[in-house]
Amino acid sequence: MQPFVFHNPTEIVFGAGMVDKVGTYAAKQGGKALLVYGRSSVKTTGVYDRVTASLAAAGLSWVDHGGVKSNPVLSHVREGVALAKQEQIDVIVAVGGGSVLDESKAIAAGALYDHDVWDFFVQTKVEKALPLVTVLTLAATGSEMNSGGVVTNEETAQKFNIGSPYLFPKTSILDPELTYTVPADYTAYSAVDAISHIIEGYFTSQDRATPLQDRFVEGLVRTIMESTEQILAQPDHADARATMMWAATWALNGLSTAGIGLYQFPNHMIEHSLSALYDIAHGAGLSIVIPGWMNYAAEKNPAKFAQFGRRVFYCTLEDDVACARFAADALKAWFGTIGSPVTLGEGQIPEEEISAIAENATMLANKWGLKAYTAEVIADILNRCR
Amino acid sequence: MQPFVFHNPTEIVFGAGMVDKVGTYAAKQGGKALLVYGRSSVKTTGVYDRVTASLAAAGLSWVDHGGVKSNPVLSHVREGVALAKQEQIDVIVAVGGGSVLDESKAIAAGALYDHDVWDFFVQTKVEKALPLVTVLTLAATGSEMNSGGVVTNEETAQKFNIGSPYLFPKTSILDPELTYTVPADYTAYSAVDAISHIIEGYFTSQDRATPLQDRFVEGLVRTIMESTEQILAQPDHADARATMMWAATWALNGLSTAGIGLYQFPNHMIEHSLSALYDIAHGAGLSIVIPGWMNYAAEKNPAKFAQFGRRVFYCTLEDDVACARFAADALKAWFGTIGSPVTLGEGQIPEEEISAIAENATMLANKWGLKAYTAEVIADILNRCR
Repeated sequence: MQPFVFHNPTEIVFGAGMVDKVGTYAAKQGGKALLVYGRSSVKTTGVYDRVTASLAAAGLSWVDHGGVKSNPVLSHVREGVALAKQEQIDVIVAVGGGSVLDESKAIAAGALYDHDVWDFFVQTKVEKALPLVTVLTLAATGSEMNSGGVVTNEETAQKFNIGSPYLFPKTSILDPELTYTVPADYTAYSAVDAISHIIEGYFTSQDRATPLQDRFVEGLVRTIMESTEQILAQPDHADARATMMWAATWALNGLSTAGIGLYQFPNHMIEHSLSALYDIAHGAGLSIVIPGWMNYAAEKNPAKFAQFGRRVFYCTLEDDVACARFAADALKAWFGTIGSPVTLGEGQIPEEEISAIAENATMLANKWGLKAYTAEVIADILNRCR
Repeated sequence: MQPFVFHNPTEIVFGAGMVDKVGTYAAKQGGKALLVYGRSSVKTTGVYDRVTASLAAAGLSWVDHGGVKSNPVLSHVREGVALAKQEQIDVIVAVGGGSVLDESKAIAAGALYDHDVWDFFVQTKVEKALPLVTVLTLAATGSEMNSGGVVTNEETAQKFNIGSPYLFPKTSILDPELTYTVPADYTAYSAVDAISHIIEGYFTSQDRATPLQDRFVEGLVRTIMESTEQILAQPDHADARATMMWAATWALNGLSTAGIGLYQFPNHMIEHSLSALYDIAHGAGLSIVIPGWMNYAAEKNPAKFAQFGRRVFYCTLEDDVACARFAADALKAWFGTIGSPVTLGEGQIPEEEISAIAENATMLANKWGLKAYTAEVIADILNRCR
């Protein structure tokens, strides 16, 4: 194990019906809220009405900032920052999935900053931020219990991240009933996303002597798989929706990577280019990239991939290389059974553009210090995703 | 899953050599510390000198409050409270195992209270407390990342707990090197203690649809077993000591029980009488009680015990009842291999006093609302511990 600091101060309020308590928790942070949400679903599902009723009952006033896109964009973040400043907002209340939460974190930082919020994505350290209270409507990204977010700068086609201890939500309301209406495709993409968060560190960590972290990741993956299958069979399966929501939260809140030392996000690095260049859901992009990357990376470190195959997919092959391949194939097959695309073709991504995608991905490879991932290597991986 | 609030704000600073940073973290909380520790080991091991050097380097002054007993007593807590008030202490720095940390929590609450600190153990709610920074020297109780503590009132022979969100340590330093000197017997008892914390909820929870919590517990138990075996073979095994330290922390910090609903502590209830009536270490008492209790309880709920047998001990029996018995036997055998007693006789506890022990245990059964545990039932369980 490697030295680390683990500090996750977000308060989680979990359970059916908890959405109606958001006002109580938001009121602890201030009297005037910026209410951030996406396009239409929170209104059609009635969640918007329940949230505003709860805010009103707790004595808060609020200003709407709706229209957050999945893959939130900088221009809309800037509008939110301007609104928060103009309206002298005390607290951000985010209602939605990871995109809404990520944009809200950027707004929370930008609202207390005199320059352009994009600075935080490039180099400037966040020194303060407005408090953030979230109501999660999609179990996937883990943004509800971590301190990071991703925003795309449309002008430069850069999908970059913001991160700071100041950006942990103060309170996140996790009401599994709000996820009953998530359709099958996004349920599947969310499962892929959550799994991707835990396996990046698991497969790429500097330190291999991390048995507790390994068990934790393997248990999360099995649980996410089993609950996703239950949800796809019965979308209002209360226990499965609850389990999936809690699992996705723990998939990216710092626990699975604490003590594993340096690690990388190669799958996210490549997928960011797919979703920056094409209109594809993040989870769908990941289910295309991950099996190809595993096929590539398992050749270099078969032991860990074999352990994954044995513990998660009950592989009984004794040879590590064979078991590592088994693991990659098994995960790809499982992504397929839940309806997520597993090839570039299935994702409507033109194979002839592999070189261009690889070139684009090197920007993030350079930014994240993934030196081994040259354009040639990334193209090699993408060729395994055909 | 059941509704819950999860909020654990303790900052963990983990790694070899981190003890020398305690001054930096304590200084964030104030300039004058009450330094709480046990009897002699922190001085003979040099930990006391390293802690005080770090406090001095960070500009803190401190007052000593040493001599905390294992099973801390109220009279010594009261002395600490008086000293903290008299010296106008800003921050409590606790250096030791669970007993030192538990006493420090009581002092932290009592120091800002105008009446007797025992009130908090009986009925009064803690409304504020001095900040607490801990340096852990024994991986076992989980006190370093939770909000509870246990103290014995010698006058009334009551061993009661204190608990409040104000009692989470601000920062806990987890330096695995400090545990290298823990002898084999206490290493074993600590493993039993940590396992006991997670399996009580696992086996007795109201809600059975908690697959993530189950996986988490099963992974912790496997990991604690494997790292304990490594430590007993090599006491300065860096990775095993680190893993055991981190596992014991997560065994009682709220995660394994979040969402499982009501649960019980029958093994702790029975063990409490053993250690109240006989001179036996808590972990040693637990390793006697747990296999007998499992043998008893498995008859009533074989499915969960069978799952434990299959996932933790790789039992391949198809019949649940048989597999549940296998699990109880396997855990008992494992406790034996690490040198912890597994029968009343091995613990020097007279079998002819089973009725008297059972009668004593009913006091706590009544206090904790374990109505099913009559003296007859407890005697039945103890007869399975012969």
